[in-house]
Amino acid sequence: MAMTRAACEALDREDPLADRRAAFILDDACIYLDGNSLGPLTRAARSRVVEVMDREWGPDLIKGWNVHGWIDLPRRLGARIAPLIGARATDVVVADSTSVNLFKLAAAYLRQAGPRRKIVTELGNFPTDLYILQGLAELLPGVIKLCAVPREAVLEAIDDSTALVVLTHVHYKTAEMFDLAAVTARAHAHGAAMLWDLSHSVGAVPVELGACRADLAVGCTYKYLNGGPGAPAFLYVRPDLQARLGPGIAGWLGHAAPFEFGDDYRPAPGVARQLAGTPGILGMAALDGSLDLFDGLDLATLRAKSLKLTGLFIELVEARCARHGLALVTPRDPARRGSHVSFAHAEGYGIVQALIARGVTGDFRAPDILRFGFTPLYTRFVDAWDAVEALVAVLKGGEWQRPEHRERRAVT
Amino acid sequence: MAMTRAACEALDREDPLADRRAAFILDDACIYLDGNSLGPLTRAARSRVVEVMDREWGPDLIKGWNVHGWIDLPRRLGARIAPLIGARATDVVVADSTSVNLFKLAAAYLRQAGPRRKIVTELGNFPTDLYILQGLAELLPGVIKLCAVPREAVLEAIDDSTALVVLTHVHYKTAEMFDLAAVTARAHAHGAAMLWDLSHSVGAVPVELGACRADLAVGCTYKYLNGGPGAPAFLYVRPDLQARLGPGIAGWLGHAAPFEFGDDYRPAPGVARQLAGTPGILGMAALDGSLDLFDGLDLATLRAKSLKLTGLFIELVEARCARHGLALVTPRDPARRGSHVSFAHAEGYGIVQALIARGVTGDFRAPDILRFGFTPLYTRFVDAWDAVEALVAVLKGGEWQRPEHRERRAVT
Repeated sequence: MAMTRAACEALDREDPLADRRAAFILDDACIYLDGNSLGPLTRAARSRVVEVMDREWGPDLIKGWNVHGWIDLPRRLGARIAPLIGARATDVVVADSTSVNLFKLAAAYLRQAGPRRKIVTELGNFPTDLYILQGLAELLPGVIKLCAVPREAVLEAIDDSTALVVLTHVHYKTAEMFDLAAVTARAHAHGAAMLWDLSHSVGAVPVELGACRADLAVGCTYKYLNGGPGAPAFLYVRPDLQARLGPGIAGWLGHAAPFEFGDDYRPAPGVARQLAGTPGILGMAALDGSLDLFDGLDLATLRAKSLKLTGLFIELVEARCARHGLALVTPRDPARRGSHVSFAHAEGYGIVQALIARGVTGDFRAPDILRFGFTPLYTRFVDAWDAVEALVAVLKGGEWQRPEHRERRAVT
Repeated sequence: MAMTRAACEALDREDPLADRRAAFILDDACIYLDGNSLGPLTRAARSRVVEVMDREWGPDLIKGWNVHGWIDLPRRLGARIAPLIGARATDVVVADSTSVNLFKLAAAYLRQAGPRRKIVTELGNFPTDLYILQGLAELLPGVIKLCAVPREAVLEAIDDSTALVVLTHVHYKTAEMFDLAAVTARAHAHGAAMLWDLSHSVGAVPVELGACRADLAVGCTYKYLNGGPGAPAFLYVRPDLQARLGPGIAGWLGHAAPFEFGDDYRPAPGVARQLAGTPGILGMAALDGSLDLFDGLDLATLRAKSLKLTGLFIELVEARCARHGLALVTPRDPARRGSHVSFAHAEGYGIVQALIARGVTGDFRAPDILRFGFTPLYTRFVDAWDAVEALVAVLKGGEWQRPEHRERRAVT
């Protein structure tokens, strides 16, 4: 039976997460399928930021570090993210950017990896992951062999000379998901450590770092966690590794007693040694607010809605845009799919611009990827329907050919 | 002739910067002598943050990176800070924390420093500077000799094996200021590069990086620049060095074309290659607002008021608290003095707490330093007077002996 808009409306009525959209400051008409790039503003995030300015920084000035617990925010926010990635509250901290956290953890691990000098990663991994590893390989002593191979060759590239495997759990372009447990086990079987980038998973796909005994992880909070543009990132270190790894960057916030102001670095006992500089409190405040939505959230419900949305979108696009040359890039198999859907099309850039002009925000990734994020906390089933309606109109009308949609801009 | 409160009031009336206090959200009764640790909230900073939430992130979502120029904020804010440190607009970027920036620039320089493996710094330098260098020395190839010596031995420690000299221009405890030109020249005479930490200078003491041909600099924006708790820091690279140094941490924001999403790192042409991850826009927005106060500000006027305030405070404390064992730690010579004043006293901790209870906020630095910051944009001459009144009362009344003032807290 063919899907209809009325059937989508019915799905929205039955959706146990439908009421969450009201937590976001989003126009009712807004069809936002780019929350995998930047999540929207929540009312709670806005309130927390204003509260920090008006009731904390403003009146209490320097005392804020103590009386409002700013100094503990990296740990407190880490503890709030921990259940989303299958970690203990004490194993995660929020700090710096994903890039800097990846640098810190990879550097910390390689410092003590002995004769093993090979890092395995994927060609086409999120660029900053590759750049960070390239830079680190030039910086560190000994000949680091950075082995970036096509996705299908990753498992085979892991061998007994491998120190570290660095992969992104859900691929930023294709949404293809690695089997986190299986890849981690493969790394461990060869005595290598596993570092996961969870940027495109956390908050949309349940992750079980602890159960898989993954060694290290980093991730972004401005996508599915809605922390705000450039919100601070997080990092995870497996409990038994925390004391074995020195800090990747030895800064005062990772000191065992930062307020002693002593001359010699002494690492904090746990994962906190991976903190470096003073935390940015306004960015942390927004994340603190946006995480309210995840308190007590059932991740299975979240995942179920995500898969239903992405499945519906794939089905509708394939049924209704069949003759327009859109090729599905995202795995059809739900077990291998993250929370976004990508199609390839030679005119992808113009099509995305024409969709945006119609009020449907997805994004484009060079050279030819149209990417649509489905974030279960605010995306409706009718959004999937209406987005496809718009896509049909753009394709049939050749709207992507209009000059204003073909002109390239530099960013995002 | 002895100074009086009326004379202080007269100084305030004549003060060309007196009207700037209205730009801050500060209670009229507030005597805040800790802006060298955390600057207060300005009306403009608050407005910019609310504007970014309500008119940028909220309604425009992902488009904000383009249409509101978020992606350029690291450069635009760098350009605004540049005149405060004697740099060209294109030589400064805002990013990360001071700790991470110090790591990046020191790592970038040492990567290409050839056989020179010695870093000279000062014992008692701001702790994170020492920790970062200690960590870097363990991370980098070859035997890095970190030579941390007492202040008076720093110049002599610089020799022909020195790669890098890392010093803080104004000392965080004593406010003693290095002669930036002379020390830089000494480093250069030995073929070493000079990296200045300007955290306790920028926004209070004019700095001439360009004229002195200083090689590298980092600094904090949450002290005299009032950017907010943990506001993003800045970094400077001398024009002719920018292309010679690779990135300290090779992240996507430092790529020549980050939105090509290519597999291989290619550094951006100028100082921008020292950017790493996605910039935190809320923190940058607050700084953007707070920097309004510095637009077109005459730094000589700022410095003159700063010295007048610190000079007055020293004079009043010495005249009125003579028999209470406070020993001046800060240089009496204005040419060697930053913008704060420190005294040593064995009961410093309790005295500072008793002052705070009286509405005068200074801070304590272990083991025995009472520290008072004089930030010329909002501190009044009567504040210096009233602070000393309170100090006299605390000392005469033995208020520091009260149990609630002696109990140590962990932070700040």
